[in-house]
Amino acid sequence: MGRKQIQHFVEEQWFTRLVIVIIIVNALVLGLETSKSIMAEWGGILHAMDVAFILFFLFELGLKLFAYRLQFFRGGWNIFDFVIVVLTVVPVFGNLSVLRSLRILRALRLFSMIPRFRLVVEGFFDALSGLVAVATMLFVMVYIAAVMATKLFGGAFPEIFGTLTKSLFSMFQLVTLEGWTSEIVRPVMEVYPWAWLFFIPFIGLTTFTIFNLLIGIIVNSMQRIYEKEEQELYNELHKSEETQEDILEKIHTIESTLNDLKKALKRE
Amino acid sequence: MGRKQIQHFVEEQWFTRLVIVIIIVNALVLGLETSKSIMAEWGGILHAMDVAFILFFLFELGLKLFAYRLQFFRGGWNIFDFVIVVLTVVPVFGNLSVLRSLRILRALRLFSMIPRFRLVVEGFFDALSGLVAVATMLFVMVYIAAVMATKLFGGAFPEIFGTLTKSLFSMFQLVTLEGWTSEIVRPVMEVYPWAWLFFIPFIGLTTFTIFNLLIGIIVNSMQRIYEKEEQELYNELHKSEETQEDILEKIHTIESTLNDLKKALKRE
Amino acid sequence: MGRKQIQHFVEEQWFTRLVIVIIIVNALVLGLETSKSIMAEWGGILHAMDVAFILFFLFELGLKLFAYRLQFFRGGWNIFDFVIVVLTVVPVFGNLSVLRSLRILRALRLFSMIPRFRLVVEGFFDALSGLVAVATMLFVMVYIAAVMATKLFGGAFPEIFGTLTKSLFSMFQLVTLEGWTSEIVRPVMEVYPWAWLFFIPFIGLTTFTIFNLLIGIIVNSMQRIYEKEEQELYNELHKSEETQEDILEKIHTIESTLNDLKKALKRE
Amino acid sequence: MGRKQIQHFVEEQWFTRLVIVIIIVNALVLGLETSKSIMAEWGGILHAMDVAFILFFLFELGLKLFAYRLQFFRGGWNIFDFVIVVLTVVPVFGNLSVLRSLRILRALRLFSMIPRFRLVVEGFFDALSGLVAVATMLFVMVYIAAVMATKLFGGAFPEIFGTLTKSLFSMFQLVTLEGWTSEIVRPVMEVYPWAWLFFIPFIGLTTFTIFNLLIGIIVNSMQRIYEKEEQELYNELHKSEETQEDILEKIHTIESTLNDLKKALKRE
Repeated sequence: MGRKQIQHFVEEQWFTRLVIVIIIVNALVLGLETSKSIMAEWGGILHAMDVAFILFFLFELGLKLFAYRLQFFRGGWNIFDFVIVVLTVVPVFGNLSVLRSLRILRALRLFSMIPRFRLVVEGFFDALSGLVAVATMLFVMVYIAAVMATKLFGGAFPEIFGTLTKSLFSMFQLVTLEGWTSEIVRPVMEVYPWAWLFFIPFIGLTTFTIFNLLIGIIVNSMQRIYEKEEQELYNELHKSEETQEDILEKIHTIESTLNDLKKALKRE
Repeated sequence: MGRKQIQHFVEEQWFTRLVIVIIIVNALVLGLETSKSIMAEWGGILHAMDVAFILFFLFELGLKLFAYRLQFFRGGWNIFDFVIVVLTVVPVFGNLSVLRSLRILRALRLFSMIPRFRLVVEGFFDALSGLVAVATMLFVMVYIAAVMATKLFGGAFPEIFGTLTKSLFSMFQLVTLEGWTSEIVRPVMEVYPWAWLFFIPFIGLTTFTIFNLLIGIIVNSMQRIYEKEEQELYNELHKSEETQEDILEKIHTIESTLNDLKKALKRE
Repeated sequence: MGRKQIQHFVEEQWFTRLVIVIIIVNALVLGLETSKSIMAEWGGILHAMDVAFILFFLFELGLKLFAYRLQFFRGGWNIFDFVIVVLTVVPVFGNLSVLRSLRILRALRLFSMIPRFRLVVEGFFDALSGLVAVATMLFVMVYIAAVMATKLFGGAFPEIFGTLTKSLFSMFQLVTLEGWTSEIVRPVMEVYPWAWLFFIPFIGLTTFTIFNLLIGIIVNSMQRIYEKEEQELYNELHKSEETQEDILEKIHTIESTLNDLKKALKRE
Repeated sequence: MGRKQIQHFVEEQWFTRLVIVIIIVNALVLGLETSKSIMAEWGGILHAMDVAFILFFLFELGLKLFAYRLQFFRGGWNIFDFVIVVLTVVPVFGNLSVLRSLRILRALRLFSMIPRFRLVVEGFFDALSGLVAVATMLFVMVYIAAVMATKLFGGAFPEIFGTLTKSLFSMFQLVTLEGWTSEIVRPVMEVYPWAWLFFIPFIGLTTFTIFNLLIGIIVNSMQRIYEKEEQELYNELHKSEETQEDILEKIHTIESTLNDLKKALKRE
């Protein structure tokens, strides 16, 4: 088979569907593997299936690489597939529990194989692109607050604010509002009664920033839809204006014809 | 009474209102039944009322089935009513506490009997239909994370991540952000200090996905309204263009008439 | 002074501002009264001020009642003011701590006296009016779930689901997602492992309903703005169409004039 | 160098970028300072760097003040920069831990130096300006509830509602919904079983107010975009109407010319 034929082969719908089915079955098998009682009885078969699956994925990848050569790496989704398959080959034959748990990441390929999911993910990236600034500002706020909290409360609360990493984690917790009083602010206020002056503005500002981030996504999405449809109306109006120009031109012609007539009559 | 007459009868407004009132009274009676002191004194009467209610619902269902025959099952809401009534007959005469508690589900019939509620529920389904993809993706994320968490943390935290079901539950808890630090992430980080590398991206991704789901519903609703009204403007513009066409045509006629005149004058 | 003059007097801006200032000072004084050390030293003065404030409010109410007679009770906001003032007279001279704490409700009059606040509150009612159906459905869901939970889990968890009132409270807690795992679902699942089948759909449905309620408010607000401005465009288009009609009419006149000319020329 | 030259100098892009880089490096250095082990080894160098940074910021401020004189204080962002630099000079040479922790606030200058961040912050203020009323109303609600709670529950729960400040903090906690049952409402209901009559309406009202605040921001943003684009369509329609006026005018001319012709023909 030539390259062209293999290109057609891997682009056929039934092949894509087969890959999707295998990804799902693989995910289910890896789900079953988490059960000790099932592993005790069916462990061998499940492991064999897993090896078969990775071989299939490697075969699929090989076909695509052969078909498209380096063109393959031009598509972001192809790189995504490639990284995931390669990343989850080692764990199949390795023994390290942490690495072996990475195999389930193959299920992420559903996001690249199912067109609707792909659209949603691309929509996410679109939404994100306009919001990098707000997200960075949120991180700057969290960082500033974490450095201050480490300096101010680190001594008395080594568990929560002992190091910069711990403080960053705790400030992120405050951003989610989860347990902000019982776990963080009330204990700290026992030692430093003025601490609410630090925490409440922080919560207010970050919550407001997240609100604005959310609103930014909504407004961006609406604006895009709005502009597209407004364009249609605009085009229609433009067409209408062109017709008006035609009318004006014709009327000019009529006017000059009439003037000709007038002159002709006068000459008589 | 013939079928036609019964059809008119069950479609009359007062009949529908009677059914609604009985559903509400039934719900209140079942609410009273939860009180032991009330049951001790009025238990017999309340139970008798409940039997009367179910007989009424069966009678209503019988009438409708007689009136519409198999046509009855064409409407989704009729099937909903049928399933609920049938499902809650057995518990009335049975003794099993779990089954008996199902009787209150009859109150769900309010959603099918009150037209405004019906509209809201239908609106929900409309909203959902466009969001199946995002919801499925959310489930895929939760599933992947649950399989990984079981493998990685199941050994040390059997209560939280011991089985795949427990992990799915705990990951769902993380999605709601409820108790994510105190109950899950902080304890796990005591044993695996790098665990935040797993949990924080998970929280970030799922929260962002839910935001997008929410935004999807808003944007869809807005788009529908927008398109409907834009259509009106578009139609108006179109009408205006047709008038322009008329004008152009008339002007053409005038032009040719003028040219005729000109020729006529020249011939003279 | 006649009624007319008093009407002018109570409608003057400085009078309204005076009332607002007194409401605010009253609220601050009642805030100071919560401090035992301040009460020990200034208790007499603060109490005297409070008596003065309520006398002022009664005087203001009296003036308005004299000025407008029964017309006064036509405005919803006037009734609001009247109820609040009357409700907080008794507590001033009474001794019951619960009643005395009601005096601060006078500060709610800020919502009726400041025009912008009034607009916001009226906006709230507008937003609510369209959402009664969804809110009622939410209550029906909570009620059904509470009755079921009392029957199913009331025996084993008297603190959480012992009575219908307790269950309603706990289901409302679930709706807010606060402590849903640690305080409710995890303990219940220890006894009834299948309980998540009851709680997770409940959380999913109620959260989705609240999302829809929120979205309903957004979409309604947008639609109102949208329709108002679309109307403007529509009017402009209509005006444009009327001009077109004029043009068409004139052209008809021109046509008939031309035909007259033609006939005249032919007759020659 | 004259003032003009220095104005050009401080406005050059490379200079702004240098300031941004130094702000970021300064923030990282202050982050490193939170680690005791790093401080033990590199403390001297880090402190020297910090002195160098503040000298640089003072130099930058001096240049700008020299270049713009009092004009400098006309821009809100300049005042922001000035206050931050001055505020963080003292701590560098002081020893008080609380003051020293303020140095990280210099990182806030990123918000004034990076144009995109500046836009976002200005957008925040725009969003806020329209929402002052709703936010004030929210504060009034929290204040009223706090005064009542102090009076009603302060005696039995000195930790939560003992003073007005504590009550304000606890009511704010209720607004965020964090721990509202386990930490506040359930304990209070043990003593005062009717307390939910106070807390649940409070939660309902404040949550609804926050929803409305959020919706207000969305609707305001949308309206601005909407109006801007609608204006374009409106202008286009207006242009179209002016063309129509032209057409009408021309037609009038044609009509009178025709009438002239008619008269001329009749006279013949």
